[in-house]
Amino acid sequence: MKPPFLPVSILSSGKALPGRKVTSSELDTRLSKSAGWVQKRSGIAYRFHANDEHQSAVAAQALHDALARGGIERDSIDLLISASGVQEQQLPSTAALVLGCAGLRPGTPGFDVNASCISFPVALHMAASLLNTSAYRRIAIVASDLASRGIDWSNAESSLIFGDGAAAVIVERGDGSSGIEGYRLRTYPEGKAYCEIRAGTSRTPRRGAQPADFLFQMDGKRVFRLASSVMESLLSDLLDDARLRLSEIDAVIPHQASHLGMRHLAERLRMPAAQIVDIYATHGNQVAASIPTALHEAFITGRAQPGRRLLLIGTAAGVTVGGMVLKL
Amino acid sequence: MKPPFLPVSILSSGKALPGRKVTSSELDTRLSKSAGWVQKRSGIAYRFHANDEHQSAVAAQALHDALARGGIERDSIDLLISASGVQEQQLPSTAALVLGCAGLRPGTPGFDVNASCISFPVALHMAASLLNTSAYRRIAIVASDLASRGIDWSNAESSLIFGDGAAAVIVERGDGSSGIEGYRLRTYPEGKAYCEIRAGTSRTPRRGAQPADFLFQMDGKRVFRLASSVMESLLSDLLDDARLRLSEIDAVIPHQASHLGMRHLAERLRMPAAQIVDIYATHGNQVAASIPTALHEAFITGRAQPGRRLLLIGTAAGVTVGGMVLKL
Repeated sequence: MKPPFLPVSILSSGKALPGRKVTSSELDTRLSKSAGWVQKRSGIAYRFHANDEHQSAVAAQALHDALARGGIERDSIDLLISASGVQEQQLPSTAALVLGCAGLRPGTPGFDVNASCISFPVALHMAASLLNTSAYRRIAIVASDLASRGIDWSNAESSLIFGDGAAAVIVERGDGSSGIEGYRLRTYPEGKAYCEIRAGTSRTPRRGAQPADFLFQMDGKRVFRLASSVMESLLSDLLDDARLRLSEIDAVIPHQASHLGMRHLAERLRMPAAQIVDIYATHGNQVAASIPTALHEAFITGRAQPGRRLLLIGTAAGVTVGGMVLKL
Repeated sequence: MKPPFLPVSILSSGKALPGRKVTSSELDTRLSKSAGWVQKRSGIAYRFHANDEHQSAVAAQALHDALARGGIERDSIDLLISASGVQEQQLPSTAALVLGCAGLRPGTPGFDVNASCISFPVALHMAASLLNTSAYRRIAIVASDLASRGIDWSNAESSLIFGDGAAAVIVERGDGSSGIEGYRLRTYPEGKAYCEIRAGTSRTPRRGAQPADFLFQMDGKRVFRLASSVMESLLSDLLDDARLRLSEIDAVIPHQASHLGMRHLAERLRMPAAQIVDIYATHGNQVAASIPTALHEAFITGRAQPGRRLLLIGTAAGVTVGGMVLKL
């Protein structure tokens, strides 16, 4: 069953990087490694780690950047969708907290959408769907994650790769010339424990949760193996939905999962490097904020332009894989 | 701007109640109160509190109940939306964990939608939107919350009212005769701290979180005052969207927030008591599971039937208020 073309138009994008730049050479010292070890192993020169900022404040900063770049009035936003991999608090929604920082019109509705690292494409598809079927005319999507708060510094695999950040887009239905040509999301819960932060209703301090339950744990090899085994058919179905060949894609906006993941994608796609938006070396893996931050990078570097086709694609905890063909 | 009529058809509903029945007289003893104190104060005879169950297992049980009641094959579900007020874990999504318990076709996509206690109507509106604009043909929505895990037993106001549970519906687009006639959601973040569980990215054990940060905290009077001040216009706009008078609503499915909240709603609506689905005395406030559990009750008691009009309405942490006019 082929999905119909779903009109949506991105009016503007923006991003925010909190706290301070943490260089890989600083981490060499912190982790007692020889000079150059962290950069060589992670492929990252630097990433940003928040100081005392709240996640919602970083999200609101990205939203304000998108509004300012587009010359868009705060009061014109009909709905805010927060698309983070980890919420700021257990309750209420991150969207409510972002609205509390953002200064939009009181009453502007907000809710969260969560599909871990692939939350942004899910939220964009949903926003497009709502713009075509409801009274909402202009929707803001904000993805924010402060992954540094959950880093297990005793784990050499995952402690190097995470960076904090937020990114936002403002969307409308548009005139029907731009929109979603293909969209696929698939969850393989056999991998639900491959990437996790276990703290929650089953592991609370009262129920004997251990400190590690509040930190990110990953079995990178298993994620990679499972994701690799299902990405080929996802990509092929996506292109089939859009009736396109890979050569007709102008730029790829991947989730910036890891050095190895980015290299593997580049090898698989066999596209000129400039067409794959790679911000990993200067941002790290920003969880749900990675894809919209890379999308923003594509806009400001001119790789995303009206009429061009983008492929958004990535893997996420769950394990969930997803992608979207987006005609601008 | 009036929203268009949005076709959606509820094929089936189901629910699950975990653990054991906790009577108010049992709580009288636990809280060292005189006989009858908890029931009088809370308006609740009993509620259910989970033992060691995982939230996702309770959710999967509700989903299986809905599938069994509708005679629906597990493999026919195209998408699972989890609509809980509190996630099972910080990462991954609750949807991935529910999929891990539910035994649906591998690859069935899932994501979370979160608007605290009003998550279910938001998810139903979204599902309807997706059914009208995407390749999804049959969507399962599951709301689950184990509020007992976050009860602050030192707080007499909130410790009495919560019950655990889950409820599910299976929806399709249908033939266009049934659907959403009105839908409104509004967030007032001035109330973002009126109901909260503060633990999260800004309050982790490593950052000095206190035990109370992992428990539900509520300023009930302020929630009630803010919600009361905005509900009247929400209700009037909802009915206006649907071009209906209140007398044309066949049954009301309210969030079962509190004894006082339910009484206030009944007084405001001036409807026969039987038309307001009130399961509070035997379930308590089940957070996001309340509305779909009450909806399921409406179906099994015959108050929800083809051709009838339901009003789903409630307040949530955020503070968010929302409602939907649903023609069956």
